[in-house]
Formats: sequence, C-alpha cells, structure tokens
Amino acid sequence: MTVPDLAALPPMDVAGRVPRLREAMREAGVEALLVTHLTNVRYLSGFPGSAGLLAVTAESLHLVTDGRYADQAPEQLAAAGVEATVGVSSTNQKALVADALGSVARLGLEAEHVSWAQYDRYAGEWFPDVELVATAGLVEELRIVKDPGEVARIAAAAGIADEALRRVLPMLGDGPTEAAFGRALDATIRELGASGNSFETIVASGPNAALPHARPTSRIIGAGELVVLDFGAVVDGYCSDMTRTVLVGQPDSETRRLWDLVVAAQAAGVAAVRAGVEVKDVDHACRDLITAAGHGEHFTHGTGHGVGLDIHEAPRVAATADATLAAGHVVTVEPGVYLAPHGGVRIEDTVLVTDDGCEPLTHFPKTLVVA
Amino acid sequence: MTVPDLAALPPMDVAGRVPRLREAMREAGVEALLVTHLTNVRYLSGFPGSAGLLAVTAESLHLVTDGRYADQAPEQLAAAGVEATVGVSSTNQKALVADALGSVARLGLEAEHVSWAQYDRYAGEWFPDVELVATAGLVEELRIVKDPGEVARIAAAAGIADEALRRVLPMLGDGPTEAAFGRALDATIRELGASGNSFETIVASGPNAALPHARPTSRIIGAGELVVLDFGAVVDGYCSDMTRTVLVGQPDSETRRLWDLVVAAQAAGVAAVRAGVEVKDVDHACRDLITAAGHGEHFTHGTGHGVGLDIHEAPRVAATADATLAAGHVVTVEPGVYLAPHGGVRIEDTVLVTDDGCEPLTHFPKTLVVA
Repeated sequence: MTVPDLAALPPMDVAGRVPRLREAMREAGVEALLVTHLTNVRYLSGFPGSAGLLAVTAESLHLVTDGRYADQAPEQLAAAGVEATVGVSSTNQKALVADALGSVARLGLEAEHVSWAQYDRYAGEWFPDVELVATAGLVEELRIVKDPGEVARIAAAAGIADEALRRVLPMLGDGPTEAAFGRALDATIRELGASGNSFETIVASGPNAALPHARPTSRIIGAGELVVLDFGAVVDGYCSDMTRTVLVGQPDSETRRLWDLVVAAQAAGVAAVRAGVEVKDVDHACRDLITAAGHGEHFTHGTGHGVGLDIHEAPRVAATADATLAAGHVVTVEPGVYLAPHGGVRIEDTVLVTDDGCEPLTHFPKTLVVA
Repeated sequence: MTVPDLAALPPMDVAGRVPRLREAMREAGVEALLVTHLTNVRYLSGFPGSAGLLAVTAESLHLVTDGRYADQAPEQLAAAGVEATVGVSSTNQKALVADALGSVARLGLEAEHVSWAQYDRYAGEWFPDVELVATAGLVEELRIVKDPGEVARIAAAAGIADEALRRVLPMLGDGPTEAAFGRALDATIRELGASGNSFETIVASGPNAALPHARPTSRIIGAGELVVLDFGAVVDGYCSDMTRTVLVGQPDSETRRLWDLVVAAQAAGVAAVRAGVEVKDVDHACRDLITAAGHGEHFTHGTGHGVGLDIHEAPRVAATADATLAAGHVVTVEPGVYLAPHGGVRIEDTVLVTDDGCEPLTHFPKTLVVA
C-alpha cells in the first residue's frame, strides 16, 4: 500500500452536471429547481460551504449564500469550472432567489430536503404566485453514477484509510483502549491528507463487537477478542467506507468459524455485484450463506449502501430495496453477524460496479489474527 | 489550565425534560408529539443513535429505532434515568409509532424537522385519520436553558479546548501549515477525552484570515501574519466554541490596532450580556465600536449564537434577531473584522448568562503575539 497522491487526482466533470439536471427537470415538468440540500448544491456547483441555495433554470444558474462566503464562493465555482452568478445576503435571500428565478410558473423543490415549515414559507411568502412541485431525487439520481474523477476521489479516500490502518494496526498488540486506537487511526487518516473521517470511527471489542453501531469506549482491547473496525476517510468531500474484524492472540474454533462465515458471505455478495443485477439479489447472496449457517436472525441490517459525497446514499443494497446496479455505482457490501453479549463480526468493502462485475476500492487484507 | 475530569461531571436532569415538554404540548394544543429531530430525541431520552423517532403522549414515552440499536437503546435510556419503551423495526416503524400513539386526534410534528415529503407520507399513509399540527421549537425552547449538568459538559468541552490550544500553540513558531496545526489541535482535543470537534476547526492565516469560514489549507503560516483559530470540543454531545486570533513575530501598528479593536468590541459584547437583555443589544454593543472605527461593513456576520447539543442553536445573537437572554442560556460573543485580501481578526468566547451578567466558559488568554 502506498499513500495516494492527492495532487494528481483527475478532474471531475462538475460543469456537466447541471445540463444533465436540466434534462431531468424537463422530464419532471418543472421549469426551475431550487436546490436546498447542501450536498446537492456542492455536487452541482462545487460550492462546499455550510449555507447556500442554488436556483437552476433552463438558462441560468445562481448561488445564493451569506456574507461569510462572499469571497470564497465565486472562486470555488470558478475553480470547478462552473458558470454561475453568486448573490450574497443574510437577510434578504428571498429577493435574490426571486430575481434569479424570474417569471417561472412551476418551481421544483427537493421535497425530501425542504422542511414542512420551509415549504409553508416558500408557498406563503417567497413564491405565492408560483406552483410548487415536489420533486424526489432529481440530483441524487445523477449522483448515483460516478464519473472517473469522483471514483478517483473515493479510491484515494479508501487508499488513505487502508494505509492508516496498516500503520496503526501493530498498536493493537499493546492492549490499547478502543478510544485510543480510534484516535490513532483518525489522526493518521488526517496526516495522510484526508480532510477527516467519513463518519465516527467504530472500534468495538469483545461484547461491544455485538453492537453494530458501537462508539469507541475506554474499554481495553483484550487478547482473543474480536475487534470490529469500521471507518472511512474523506477526500474532496468524497467518502470511503471499510470494515475489518480482527483479533489479537488465538481465536477459539467458534470465533474462527464465525469469522470465516462472514468473510465468505461478504465475498459472495461482492461476487454478485455487476451492472444489471438487482440490489436485493446482492443482499440475498450474502444473507443466504448466513441464514444457512443458522445465523439469519443475527444479521440485523441491510447488506450495504451507496457511497459518494454522502457516506450513505443511493442505492440502498437490501432485501427490501428496489434498484438495479449500473456501471459507475459505488456501493458497500457489509454483512455482519452479532451474537450479543459475546461479540460479532462484520466485513465490508466499497466497490465500483462495472459491466463485468466490480472493482474493490478498499484493499486492506482480510486477516483474522493480526498480532 | 488543567484537564477537566470527565468522570466527575454532575448528572443532567434528562428525566425532567419530557414533563416540561408535556406542558409545552398542552399550550400548543397537541395531545402527542412525534419528535423527529435526532438532537431533540437525544435531549429528551438520552438516546444518542443516528436513527430514531420519539413518540411523546401525555402518559407515555416510546422510542422507535432500528435493529442496529436494539441492544444499546434500552441501556442508554436507563442510564439517563428515562422511563420509556423501545420498539425496534427497520421496515415497519409506522405500526410501532401508531401503537405508541394510540387513539390520538391531534398529533404535533416538528415542522422544521420533518421534510415536505415525510409530511406527505405521514398525512397520507401513517396517520390518515389524525389532525397533524405544525409545531415550532417546542423542544428547542426547553433546550435553550441549560441545567447545571449541561453547563458542566459545555464547560468541560471548553476546558479541553483551552488546554489543547495551550499544548499545541508553541508549534506555531515552527511555521506549520494550517492543516498540520489544525490536525495537531484536533488530535490533542481527542486525547484529552473529547469525543471530537464541535465543527471543522478553522486555522486561517494571512489572506485566509479574511475569510470567516476558511478551511485549513496547505499554506505555511508565516511570521507577522494574523492566524484565526476557531474550534471547539464535544463532551457527552455538548459543544464548545472559541476563537482566538494570534500572530508569530512582530505585528505592524495597523494589525495591532485592528486586533485591539476586535478585542475591545468582544469585551463590550460580553459586558452587555445579562439575563433580561435583548440579543440585538448585545450585537449593538459589539458592532457600535467596530462601526465607530470605520469597519462596520467589514463585520459581515452576527455577533453570536446559542451553544449546546448543537454548535448553532437558539438564541441567535444578532441585530435582526428578537430574543431576550435568560439565566441558563449559553451563547457565543464573536465579532470579527475581515479585510480581504489582507487578513482578519475574530475573537470569541462562549458564556453562561446569569442574572448579574455572565460567566465565560472559555478561558484561553487573549494575546496577539504568541511566539
């Protein structure tokens, strides 16, 4: 493993996204779309700030933000190659948005990302004479297929996470607390150039490994105990996600059998990933092995999820989900078996869906005994 | 400065919150409230997970979450001293919530924290025969006044942040990059026992100091340059927030004058804080000094905000806000002057409002020249 060269990442096609969105807007029957979800604002414009609205019409693109971003925002849009005007106001964004939209008759809102209260304000105060249309997933549907620049960023984040784990794993032999091991991992991820963690790192040992979403505690990691390590890095806003379950010392035969089962189930899930496959079939590929081994009830979550600017995004990979994988999707495959209060095992890779199958973006070896 | 003893924090009165909420529900005319905002779920129940709904009726309290939290959630509620039932489902939360609510006729929703799309699902599928009532800030109004246990946690987070800065500040003399200095600060905050940062640490040097929300870059911090350091820690979910602006080497007279101005404005703001005072008057106290010095247009944001489980919560401290401070509020006072492309100064403390004035919770000395 080597440290990814973040200076050599290929460019993303940010400027190509709004034209594709306009096609989706036409199909949805809206003349304009007010993008309120910040991740979507970033995706479409390159603006990574913490407050902004993006008004998209058939001809124009206008970002409205507040005074804190007056200088940064135009530079960030230009750096992304996006042509847009920027309006700055903390107190009268309504006027700026209205100006940007012009005389639109049907305005799309992101119904999942506008609160009920905000909808009422838009309908009553901001746009009393406009027909507001609930749209769902117009931008998310674009985000689901990653371009090569996006894949390179997820891969770089995954590469940093791999290398960070390689560097800190020997520390497990010293019997650290979960929290101390997690801190060392997180600090190394930052030192290697990631902007941060893609979510709160999970270091769950012994009985805590039976909790799928444990937080690191002051518990000392003991010999012979399963340790679930679930973590990721962020590069240019893009997330990685990987889980390994490891052990210091000698596993008993039951622990070894459980770990082998989950590794096999995870491999079966990865083997099922290919463009054109239903997500529920990937879930079944994992779950059937675990169920056949008598642990179906102990696999208490879905098999995976999409990864990109959000750590959890479309498509959900689960028995209850309806979606078909396509080339350019990036998803996790992460079965787990949890045997409270004894322990648990989860194994996870993030993979790029291709026409022939998939390419793993996380590469850390799957080894039970690490020290 | 010493490291706060996180094992000796006084308890919070979590169990006392739902009874107060029920009073607010009665005043709002709702028989039951479905709490969807996760921070509010945590505040009311002690459950810190990433997915959950809390159904509050006049007699009962019921948390609905998914299988990942089946084991943790009941323990966490019990640890907080909260009596509640817990329902676990990933696929049929609707039935669990309906059971918990019983035959309620008027159900309050948190209108700012329910999406337009979710509202439609609730109205159409979940509760077709129930009158849904938009409520605003019922829980946030409780959260605004902190109990001693909450203040202790914010103070502990602030104490950790103070101590972390004390430990890493000498590193500035070595000419680190903004990113490296930020990483060292963040790692120290975690080593001292915080669960993480309350927001992405700002280390903005030279021209970057003119950007109120700069992100740390690979820029090397040079002698004679203003460096804005804005950061906080999290303890038990509670945030701290502090900004210092420092400089290595010798400031020119203009820089010194600017720094003195902002320090004076910040002190004037803090001096204005007292129970019974309007937030706009605190803003004026800061802003008037800056305006009188000819920099009114360079103070491009409000004076502060409440701090608690969220890094930004009520009350907003700004000229455009209507609120009166009360004992137990915790707010920031953080004027800044930004002179792009030259640099900027911001100084911020987090303070506890009292009947007589306020108590600062952030204590790091305000010193311009630090090495």
